[in-house]
Amino acid sequence: MLNTRYLAKIRHRIDQKTKPAGSLGALEDIAQQLALIQSQGKEDAVTQLEIHQPTVIVFAGDHGVADEGVSIAPSEVTYQMVMNFLAGGAGVNCFCRSAGVGMKVVDCGIMIPVEAPHPDCFIQQRLGSRTNNFHLEPAMTEAQVTQGIKYGQNVVTKTIEAGSNLVMFGEMGIGNTTSAAAILASLTQIDPQMCVGHGTGIQPEQFMKKTAIVRQCAEKLRGENAMTVLAGAGGFEIVQMVGAFIGAAQRGVPVIVDGFIVTVAAYVATLLEPACRDYMIFAHQSEEPGHQRVLEVLYAKPLLHLGLRLGEGTGAVLAVPLIQAACEFYNTMASFDEAGVTV
Amino acid sequence: MLNTRYLAKIRHRIDQKTKPAGSLGALEDIAQQLALIQSQGKEDAVTQLEIHQPTVIVFAGDHGVADEGVSIAPSEVTYQMVMNFLAGGAGVNCFCRSAGVGMKVVDCGIMIPVEAPHPDCFIQQRLGSRTNNFHLEPAMTEAQVTQGIKYGQNVVTKTIEAGSNLVMFGEMGIGNTTSAAAILASLTQIDPQMCVGHGTGIQPEQFMKKTAIVRQCAEKLRGENAMTVLAGAGGFEIVQMVGAFIGAAQRGVPVIVDGFIVTVAAYVATLLEPACRDYMIFAHQSEEPGHQRVLEVLYAKPLLHLGLRLGEGTGAVLAVPLIQAACEFYNTMASFDEAGVTV
Repeated sequence: MLNTRYLAKIRHRIDQKTKPAGSLGALEDIAQQLALIQSQGKEDAVTQLEIHQPTVIVFAGDHGVADEGVSIAPSEVTYQMVMNFLAGGAGVNCFCRSAGVGMKVVDCGIMIPVEAPHPDCFIQQRLGSRTNNFHLEPAMTEAQVTQGIKYGQNVVTKTIEAGSNLVMFGEMGIGNTTSAAAILASLTQIDPQMCVGHGTGIQPEQFMKKTAIVRQCAEKLRGENAMTVLAGAGGFEIVQMVGAFIGAAQRGVPVIVDGFIVTVAAYVATLLEPACRDYMIFAHQSEEPGHQRVLEVLYAKPLLHLGLRLGEGTGAVLAVPLIQAACEFYNTMASFDEAGVTV
Repeated sequence: MLNTRYLAKIRHRIDQKTKPAGSLGALEDIAQQLALIQSQGKEDAVTQLEIHQPTVIVFAGDHGVADEGVSIAPSEVTYQMVMNFLAGGAGVNCFCRSAGVGMKVVDCGIMIPVEAPHPDCFIQQRLGSRTNNFHLEPAMTEAQVTQGIKYGQNVVTKTIEAGSNLVMFGEMGIGNTTSAAAILASLTQIDPQMCVGHGTGIQPEQFMKKTAIVRQCAEKLRGENAMTVLAGAGGFEIVQMVGAFIGAAQRGVPVIVDGFIVTVAAYVATLLEPACRDYMIFAHQSEEPGHQRVLEVLYAKPLLHLGLRLGEGTGAVLAVPLIQAACEFYNTMASFDEAGVTV
């Protein structure tokens, strides 16, 4: 857990800025959270927040449960979208360019491997070529879960060692809303039906199928621990993201959390390592009903409500300029004294 | 009104991007609106949106109605905050630095004039040193309203001629939420009580006084035209913002609209020149109840909901990176064909 020794001092600094108390709303919360994080282990509360090389890591994996026809697109689209990421043509690439955010793409186990040579931003740490269909059998072994968590810790640690002190995660994987819904329904008491959404736009009959699969999975896995649930219904990209959340917290680096699947991974990370929660900044609230539920479980109030439902970490990248704005006001906004403004 | 000849073509371009249709939510609406605006008078729909030198113009003015004790701070604070803007220490300055947005400050008539020499970003176009107390007499003459509208058109035109094609307005003026509430209650059928908020944090007795003043003003001015209402209850910064909205629309330049007072000025501008509405992008929905009402009247759905209540145009400046992100996806995101992604 974060040491809150400097909390009052940080709050005082924010409240002395030339503005009515609290009038910067959510940005004040962000500044306070970052100041607490960046003051850990320091002699005093920091007066200058620093953001270096914000980076989105997009984790991709394929899902056996896609065989059940729960998605709008075939599994091949995972590979196609990975190639789109590497070519710079996807939504998340655009927002990275626009906001000056770096990007890495991780193949956690997609059906069609990307051929060498790979660009620098591409990392292959495959746990397989596709999970098993969790409607029929466990999606993976617990050994794969453990390995995936290590891989995720590893990639985020390398990113931090290369100079980034703000990271965010995106995902790509046809079928992964079904997997995330099953994990959420299994690890909480939330009605499975409330965990299932329309993904990127499925038909009513697909929706009913998806709900039935999630319900059956939850009936089987409820009461099991997080590792067993991840093995039972997880995805290769999901387990690696769980590890990445843990790795970022171990390094004291905040993570911007966006999207249903990433938020489910965030929730699982808090079960394995509760201190992870302190490092999470929530970017965007989507319409996906399961997303709203898991945000409630995490007591999270996201910054943005833009009606996004693309995934890829797009909402997280869009939140970066807001976080930079919060840092700037914490660092350079005048106090009443400095500006000679009557309180 | 905007020519919508290219609307279908613009929509098709957006829908062919590698994403589920509509999955970029509000950013798709922004891209569509900007593409419509930037395609006016062109041979075809533009394929590249361009944002040059986004600039916030902060209009400051003092209000005689502050004598009624309706504000948390004395009128001197308007001058003090203008000096804070010029020194770079206010919230809006911080967000401008963070987002690469330019800033101008306009003295529309503050109680204490800024002494020369003035920095380049400072413009003096004073309509007086403070409006009359509109609770006792009209705030200004109709000649002052007319002059103020010209001043506002002038400053925005110069900003556009200097290279900006995206502008936004902020305001500073102790007492100006009372003025804005009175204008809104007078020009609409909205209950005066619904137009009044707690501003930057007034006490219950001040709130009752403020509501009574707004109600009496609306009883007097309802049925009058916009010019008479502006003279009756307006502020020097408000009339100049009305002119600035009209000037931007005349030049075909979009305006990011933020905050209760600016949004009331936007509404008045649409009464005088309905085409202004097409050029407005709404940045932030504040908690101020009058703001929610005037947004409804304008059929506006703001991008952000951050709990801001500082004014100064802060919400508009914070929205700039989102607008740049919308342009970037419109300009460079791959289509399904280009990326070889299965639809």
